[in-house]
Amino acid sequence: MRIALLGGTGDIGRGLALRWGRDANHDLLVGSRDPEKAREQAESYEATLEDRGASADIDGFENAMAADRADVVVLAVPAYHLVDTVEAVADRLDSETVLVTPAVGMKRDEDGFHYNRPGAGSVAALAAEAKPDDVPLVGAFHNLPAGGLADLDEEFDWDTLVFGDDPDAKATVSDLAAEIEGLRPLDAGGLGNAAEIESVTPLLINVASENKGLHDLGVKFW
Amino acid sequence: MRIALLGGTGDIGRGLALRWGRDANHDLLVGSRDPEKAREQAESYEATLEDRGASADIDGFENAMAADRADVVVLAVPAYHLVDTVEAVADRLDSETVLVTPAVGMKRDEDGFHYNRPGAGSVAALAAEAKPDDVPLVGAFHNLPAGGLADLDEEFDWDTLVFGDDPDAKATVSDLAAEIEGLRPLDAGGLGNAAEIESVTPLLINVASENKGLHDLGVKFW
Repeated sequence: MRIALLGGTGDIGRGLALRWGRDANHDLLVGSRDPEKAREQAESYEATLEDRGASADIDGFENAMAADRADVVVLAVPAYHLVDTVEAVADRLDSETVLVTPAVGMKRDEDGFHYNRPGAGSVAALAAEAKPDDVPLVGAFHNLPAGGLADLDEEFDWDTLVFGDDPDAKATVSDLAAEIEGLRPLDAGGLGNAAEIESVTPLLINVASENKGLHDLGVKFW
Repeated sequence: MRIALLGGTGDIGRGLALRWGRDANHDLLVGSRDPEKAREQAESYEATLEDRGASADIDGFENAMAADRADVVVLAVPAYHLVDTVEAVADRLDSETVLVTPAVGMKRDEDGFHYNRPGAGSVAALAAEAKPDDVPLVGAFHNLPAGGLADLDEEFDWDTLVFGDDPDAKATVSDLAAEIEGLRPLDAGGLGNAAEIESVTPLLINVASENKGLHDLGVKFW
């Protein structure tokens, strides 16, 4: 499968690239607004994997080029860049492309981090408004600590909640998530459930910062 | 310790009464607006525990009587009864009483359950506004499935997030939570973090309903 990681030079993009690079067998495309930076990061991911005896095909491109002809396009960008990133690649997407949002908007006050719920209802709803109508959107990979995901020495047993209104697209993303060792995809229903899922991310950060010995927290439901 | 479970005839109150009755050694007071119902439920909890070879001292009272001279008062009532319950017992509380809210407001639409965030910012903030100023308030026991908690055959390994602005009160509630077998209290910071914690409860219900084989879900952070 051809997977584009837009904003793939950032933390969550790095983690997904390294995990899929090690645990699965896909064409991985790192996207960035700066194609030179994308190429450099792609090479660095390949080198990190080679150091561990894994080899993966990872290339770097400007975001729209990365999204072009991809089967799955992951919007691994900060929430405040989500809409312009979707708009920048919109004409490279079609009904066969699965668009994935792991983005969460947060703000911080004296108590800690908080979910910054957009007027649209959720960050996923913002992406849904910005994307072409026929492109299916799935939410996934929200509640994973970027540092732990990107550290291949870290073994984990985490859940990721997958949600969306297109069952086939959701199944595609769940299958991709399940390929990552230690990651269990769980169905969290439709796009309307996005806010509760997105708001777990600031919670994980707060719990990690308040409890000695806990860091890089993920979550498991049972 | 003298623990009053207001609304203790309901699901979460039943679970806390049975777990503390079995795993700890406290004076447990079941409160209800209907004292007769409170007495009946208290007897039924004692009988359930006796059937398992555990004995506990559980009494039933009208809410204000239950709260009177209690060290810890748990508001195990639906969110829409939280404020009137606090007001009904306010003159029985003082700076030595720890008030505990496990309450979550939810609404339902076609996608599932959703967090119904009050204008005050959280259900805990509603309780904070309604209580006497000098009474410390702690949030805890939000993300526990009431059915699993009340079923003593269920063994679990769940976390409960404890939050509040009074460190001593938070420590008291964390210690009580830790007495329940299989329950780990985690510090989730101050009252300002309440919304993210309360909103995990509808998420747990949605995930349980969307995934075969999952039911009575709790959560573990790691």
